[in-house]
Amino acid sequence: MNSLFASLPTTVFETMSRLAREHDAVNLGQGFPDDPGPLDVRQKAAEAIVDGWNQYPPMMGTPELRHAVAAHYRAWQGLDLDPESEVMVTSGATEAIAGALLALIEPGDEVVLFQPLYDAYLPLVQRAGGVPRLVRLVPPHWRITEEALAQVFSPRTRLVLFNNPHNPTGRVFGRDELDILARFCTRSGAVLISDEVWEHVIFDGLSHHSVLSLPGLRGRAVKIGSAGKIFGMTGWKVGFVCAAPELMRALSRAHQFLTFTTPPALQQAVAYGLGKERDWFLSTRAGLQRSRDRLARGLAGLGFSVLPSAGTYFLNVDLAPLDPALRDEAFCRRLVERERVAAIPVSAFYAEQPVESVIRFCFAKTDATLDRALNRLSAVG
Amino acid sequence: MNSLFASLPTTVFETMSRLAREHDAVNLGQGFPDDPGPLDVRQKAAEAIVDGWNQYPPMMGTPELRHAVAAHYRAWQGLDLDPESEVMVTSGATEAIAGALLALIEPGDEVVLFQPLYDAYLPLVQRAGGVPRLVRLVPPHWRITEEALAQVFSPRTRLVLFNNPHNPTGRVFGRDELDILARFCTRSGAVLISDEVWEHVIFDGLSHHSVLSLPGLRGRAVKIGSAGKIFGMTGWKVGFVCAAPELMRALSRAHQFLTFTTPPALQQAVAYGLGKERDWFLSTRAGLQRSRDRLARGLAGLGFSVLPSAGTYFLNVDLAPLDPALRDEAFCRRLVERERVAAIPVSAFYAEQPVESVIRFCFAKTDATLDRALNRLSAVG
Ligand SMILES: CSCCC(=O)C(=O)O
Ligand SMILES: CSCCC(=O)C(=O)O
Repeated sequence: MNSLFASLPTTVFETMSRLAREHDAVNLGQGFPDDPGPLDVRQKAAEAIVDGWNQYPPMMGTPELRHAVAAHYRAWQGLDLDPESEVMVTSGATEAIAGALLALIEPGDEVVLFQPLYDAYLPLVQRAGGVPRLVRLVPPHWRITEEALAQVFSPRTRLVLFNNPHNPTGRVFGRDELDILARFCTRSGAVLISDEVWEHVIFDGLSHHSVLSLPGLRGRAVKIGSAGKIFGMTGWKVGFVCAAPELMRALSRAHQFLTFTTPPALQQAVAYGLGKERDWFLSTRAGLQRSRDRLARGLAGLGFSVLPSAGTYFLNVDLAPLDPALRDEAFCRRLVERERVAAIPVSAFYAEQPVESVIRFCFAKTDATLDRALNRLSAVG
Repeated sequence: MNSLFASLPTTVFETMSRLAREHDAVNLGQGFPDDPGPLDVRQKAAEAIVDGWNQYPPMMGTPELRHAVAAHYRAWQGLDLDPESEVMVTSGATEAIAGALLALIEPGDEVVLFQPLYDAYLPLVQRAGGVPRLVRLVPPHWRITEEALAQVFSPRTRLVLFNNPHNPTGRVFGRDELDILARFCTRSGAVLISDEVWEHVIFDGLSHHSVLSLPGLRGRAVKIGSAGKIFGMTGWKVGFVCAAPELMRALSRAHQFLTFTTPPALQQAVAYGLGKERDWFLSTRAGLQRSRDRLARGLAGLGFSVLPSAGTYFLNVDLAPLDPALRDEAFCRRLVERERVAAIPVSAFYAEQPVESVIRFCFAKTDATLDRALNRLSAVG
């Protein structure tokens, strides 16, 4: 048995969702909306399953979806991608990340990661043979600085695994921070894998800068996207990988042996969805922003110290001003068991020296759900 | 970049399907039926997408599907599986195999494999850090023998990756051969991963013996199944893993970081489908057997030397009696380009010392498709 995998715990998201079910809690833990997702996109998928092709699609994805991804990123992010050689479809962004790490890490390579980090990253890097080097982002601003990067980049840095907008902090990194990162990557010759699954979930009029648009990175960056996040249907498991052809060759080898293909009916529906009018995306964003504001206002009203969130489904609360002795894990356990509200302890996003005073709430919920949670939280705020 | 993955070719199945499209050939290469699959199962999926849950299902699979898998294997194979702790759903059998290898191989472990082998197996074993030891199955009988196993099993054997019914040979291994294999596994303390995706595609009244029913293997075997193969919808990518709880723990860690979950609407439809009446499965089998016989008869009539096929979608033809100088790869290329029929060269299933006189045809097609192929092949037989 593999010693690394055998010793891992169940992911905190799954554990918290299970506890939420057991305690009949309002689940603001694992990140998924309670909106059912766009009906027209679901209807397209249903039609395709009944009337369309249910056999293996091309391994790289259906031509329709690959073209739709390229067109979508041209319109929204000004990227110039060749759908034939620079776009691949995967069974969700998780597969895309796992595949990119297996394809790009040669055992012994140093890999730079940012803490706090999504819990899949570190075990995947280690299982692929990478040697992790962790940059620490520090609350409340969680900024990327030259000094922090200088401490972990080395001549042996081969890969960087990055995430923007950032889970769990809700940060959308500034162009200045991205430029610093790009400079370190080009200087060290590292490839940058960028998990951009939250690219459409940004607020306050911000725009998303993909790593593929950064100076010097067009040929050395891998952009990962997610239809599940774009359309708020997290169970669909349709992801996209965009990269220059030389990188794509290796990435496609990993994909062909990890899942090979992705259900063609879902691909067809996503291809349709990506072409929706601009307003649909903007009003989806506006709706999520209203939900963020509703939960932030409510939590602040209860006396919680709410950290800013510029993107993702998440906002964080710092428990320290409430009571410096509070620990996020114990607090979340009490919340789900006693108050019957599930949240995620941010310490679960750390490999070492965890910040233990911050907890994460998912606000991608109806007003009624948020109000129910706030009502239950009034006992602890 | 990872040197192993960067140097791999595109899988032969994808390449042949591409050539088939380019030359407007009858595609008897990659294994998929041209039947659209059971309408009622597709309708269930369509309903679930429109009316049901499209967010993350539980990481191990929906309770409905896990119970349906356990009930199905109880009814068909006499297995006694606990749906809660011994069944997991994956995004296709390919993910299940990749995950099992990543979860169970500790770098340096010896892994026994059977040649000819499905082309994903060897790179996945190597990428996971395993040291492959290859058993050779020899045409025309492709039998597992004590002598062959004795040559590759060693005190360092930790894992065996097995496939039954076997692709590409179409063999359903006999109970005597399985018992020999089980004995070697228990004696060496190895875990047996068994790719049983073709378990329902067996002919001539044969029955399938899962490795989980073999003496001594209940606690040290991993059974992998595929809804795509059972229902003839290869693009669905819904797989199952069955194993004792101690193994399942590690297997689920790999799954949680490779794809995490599988679309819930497809899981729901598969759960429904697995409960279909016995006759549906038997008549699907009978239909495929008729197709096998039609293609075998036609090929024999054209002068080809047809090898027996007891299961899978495939039958093989030995070119040597036709002309000992023929090489499978060159022959398949000529077939797809000139005769416009795609087949798979069996040498693609070898890591070393390939058998080069055998080519594989997929017979899971309508009579009209098979007849069209036979008609085109009449020029070469
Ligand atoms: C794979 S479940 C986690 C979903 C998610 O992105 C989150 O909650 O952070
Ligand atoms: C992953 S495409 C190959 C499908 C198949 O099982 C085969 O043709 O052997």
